[in-house]
Amino acid sequence: MIIEGALMLAPLIVSFIYGEELKYKLAFIIPIIALTVLGGLMLKPKPKRKSLYQKEGFALVALVWIVMTVFGAIPFVINGDIPNYIDACFEIMSGFTTTGASILKDITVLEHSSLFWRSFSHWIGGMGILVFVLIFIPESDDGSSMHLLRAESPGPQVGKIASKMKVTARILYLIYLCLTVLEVIFLLCGPLINHDALTDAGYSSYEGDKLFHALLTSFGSAGTGGFGFIPNSMEFMTPYAQYVISIFLLIFGCNFGLYYLILLGKIKEVFRSEEFRCYLIIIVSSVALVFVNLCLRLESLGYSIEEAFRHTLFQIASIMTTTGYSTTDFNLWPMVSKMVLILLMFTGAMAGSTAGGIKLSRIVIAVKGTFINVRKLINPRYVPKAKFEGKSLEEKTTNDVFSFITLYLFILLTATLLLSFDPISDVNEHGFFSNFSASLACISNIGPGFEAVGPYASYADYNAFSKLILTFTMLIGRLEILPVLILFNPRAWKRV
Amino acid sequence: MIIEGALMLAPLIVSFIYGEELKYKLAFIIPIIALTVLGGLMLKPKPKRKSLYQKEGFALVALVWIVMTVFGAIPFVINGDIPNYIDACFEIMSGFTTTGASILKDITVLEHSSLFWRSFSHWIGGMGILVFVLIFIPESDDGSSMHLLRAESPGPQVGKIASKMKVTARILYLIYLCLTVLEVIFLLCGPLINHDALTDAGYSSYEGDKLFHALLTSFGSAGTGGFGFIPNSMEFMTPYAQYVISIFLLIFGCNFGLYYLILLGKIKEVFRSEEFRCYLIIIVSSVALVFVNLCLRLESLGYSIEEAFRHTLFQIASIMTTTGYSTTDFNLWPMVSKMVLILLMFTGAMAGSTAGGIKLSRIVIAVKGTFINVRKLINPRYVPKAKFEGKSLEEKTTNDVFSFITLYLFILLTATLLLSFDPISDVNEHGFFSNFSASLACISNIGPGFEAVGPYASYADYNAFSKLILTFTMLIGRLEILPVLILFNPRAWKRV
Repeated sequence: MIIEGALMLAPLIVSFIYGEELKYKLAFIIPIIALTVLGGLMLKPKPKRKSLYQKEGFALVALVWIVMTVFGAIPFVINGDIPNYIDACFEIMSGFTTTGASILKDITVLEHSSLFWRSFSHWIGGMGILVFVLIFIPESDDGSSMHLLRAESPGPQVGKIASKMKVTARILYLIYLCLTVLEVIFLLCGPLINHDALTDAGYSSYEGDKLFHALLTSFGSAGTGGFGFIPNSMEFMTPYAQYVISIFLLIFGCNFGLYYLILLGKIKEVFRSEEFRCYLIIIVSSVALVFVNLCLRLESLGYSIEEAFRHTLFQIASIMTTTGYSTTDFNLWPMVSKMVLILLMFTGAMAGSTAGGIKLSRIVIAVKGTFINVRKLINPRYVPKAKFEGKSLEEKTTNDVFSFITLYLFILLTATLLLSFDPISDVNEHGFFSNFSASLACISNIGPGFEAVGPYASYADYNAFSKLILTFTMLIGRLEILPVLILFNPRAWKRV
Repeated sequence: MIIEGALMLAPLIVSFIYGEELKYKLAFIIPIIALTVLGGLMLKPKPKRKSLYQKEGFALVALVWIVMTVFGAIPFVINGDIPNYIDACFEIMSGFTTTGASILKDITVLEHSSLFWRSFSHWIGGMGILVFVLIFIPESDDGSSMHLLRAESPGPQVGKIASKMKVTARILYLIYLCLTVLEVIFLLCGPLINHDALTDAGYSSYEGDKLFHALLTSFGSAGTGGFGFIPNSMEFMTPYAQYVISIFLLIFGCNFGLYYLILLGKIKEVFRSEEFRCYLIIIVSSVALVFVNLCLRLESLGYSIEEAFRHTLFQIASIMTTTGYSTTDFNLWPMVSKMVLILLMFTGAMAGSTAGGIKLSRIVIAVKGTFINVRKLINPRYVPKAKFEGKSLEEKTTNDVFSFITLYLFILLTATLLLSFDPISDVNEHGFFSNFSASLACISNIGPGFEAVGPYASYADYNAFSKLILTFTMLIGRLEILPVLILFNPRAWKRV
């Protein structure tokens, strides 16, 4: 909690820089004080037992995320940018879980400090709040920190980079920080926003503030979050900026362990990673498929060939890494392209990246597991020799993956059912595609879906109940289901 | 093949009874002769080895289904009712797999013999494939091959009925036959078709032929198929007939092993079946939910309260048993009701019934498996004691179920992607909901989906490629995936 208070100093500083009204400063000062006092009080009773069981680690992570959200929403309510508390919770959960779904119909009303806090929350949540905390707390020997890391890191298994968790967490964060800074530098090197197009479209020109916008863009892409800060997400970015962002999105969709390998000079090993090869193949093939599909309809979409390619690359990168930025309204794309995006919404990018979704490694393992099952039926004496990333694929891993995907589907369908209870009015309802894609976009931490929740629309039309459901779905998706299940399982709280 | 030839005698007789034109008689005579000759030729070379490996049994089943379809489609082409061969294959595969999806926009053009062959194929397909499986799959000592439909539709209880598989198959067929006859008798006892409403709607009155219509209705509900034979599926049936059909649908959605238990007087054991209790709970709760939901919109739907209840009961029974009959256009229902139907399209009814879908037993096992996984995380030393239907739930069973559901989802999404390639015209496409529900309706062997493939629409607008995809999807769904995978896996054809 103290750390969250400390993190809130950043938007407070932004608020001072831009000389915002008093209430915008108070919006951050009040929760900072509250967090520090409460956090300080809880430091007092020293725990007798320093180690954590796995279940405690998992439950702790889920709890910390909820506490973060409950407090993180306060600034928006105090400064009046999002007066409804549930909306504010939705917005900041969407930030921390790097979903990027917004309930705001018009983001031009937000002040600099609010915009900064929203995008900054992506950057904090992308790598994991507790991984960040791990850097600061002393390491215990019994694997407590390992449990925390496992609960929070995306993917079926956590590769230990270094023998000590603390060292691993520091290396990961350093890579994360360096890549983010690199993106900011690249963005500053060229024109960022197409100011003329903005004024032509009737908005203010957003001139100046280049560093501010580059920072926010980088926060959103590093965390694969996707909150916009000018109207229409990334539509009014210059082509240069759109290409830079696409490439950095794809970079942030990779397992960060690979960058550590590169730093160690083991570049060959990178290409030996099956998940990485699968990542490249999927990117190339989906870009090719969507590009051809769009080219067949250039006229009705009003794109030039270059635009078709740029939008394809950007949208594939944005959806596959579950970011959710958009340069065009892909809601209007032909069905094949939409289906490719939907499938990518399921898969997500690589495990160990900041992206959400099922993760490619799980998909690869599921495919291999299926082949093993078929071969076992063909020959009952068959002993599987399948490997994944050089290690032999244990049955337990495969089964965990199958069970994960099944649960993912259950939760997705349940959320879609619950959303369908939402009556907009007596005659008007959200269609199946809206509800389904909204649930999918939230569980996979993407942000925009299709139709009513398309890239140029918002979640504002859903009622409070639906927003709570979706807020919860984002958390489940970000923590990969099990930690949340454990937190709400009464058995977990009994003494063993 | 000879058996298929023999089965085709039935529609031929119908053709003679109704004194149809020569081409309608030839339509069945020609394939009967072809099947008998080809089948006879293949009887000659006696196989050296009489027993079958499991993989051979599986591949054989898949192959038999394809051959049945290839020949079963011929009559429609010869008599000109469905001139396009791919359409005819779609139609008869839809019949054998008890899907009930039709490419016909107007079924009034069909002659009696064609209608009979369509509906009769449901009856054959509903139970027919069981025989092959039960006869050919060697009984294993550990009972694992019988466990949970790994092969086909038998279900967990089937092994217990009789020690010999052949005897079991006979008992099941007898129950199937008796229940069908019982339904015919019930239908004949009251008014069947609302002739006045039909003439008011501008159709012919369909008077006379009561036995014919009762037979076709019973074939369709016994096999949980769902082909209609008068316009608008079951809309013009009398309320009496609609209630009778609803109840018989629910009866055919039960595991047939339960009826054997009843015959043996072990009624208490029936209620001890977890799957059966789950079946009852789901029926009651979904009927309640949909009924309340419809009652809130009585006016806009134009229903009376009795109608709302009747349509709810009928539609839940029809969709849950994956039949696909409809008494009303549920496409117009509010979203909550539609979502309940979609969820039921996934689950299907009980294992060991003639219904399709994932099957309730798998859902129950998946839920229990999830609880076990969570408890193992909470306490790593936890030894699962979970039981299903009185037997302890082995890890292998749970894992097979998870892997099955994952595969189901993969195939569903792949089919949806492939359907999206279908351009109706340059500007018009099938929406996501149409493609998704068409794929779901085919893999779960239901028939109608939503929007473009709703209960009063047809699959006629899809192109030949899409129809082939859907034909294949029906087969995969009916044979529960693995047999089809084995048939198309080259490794299965190597000598071990």
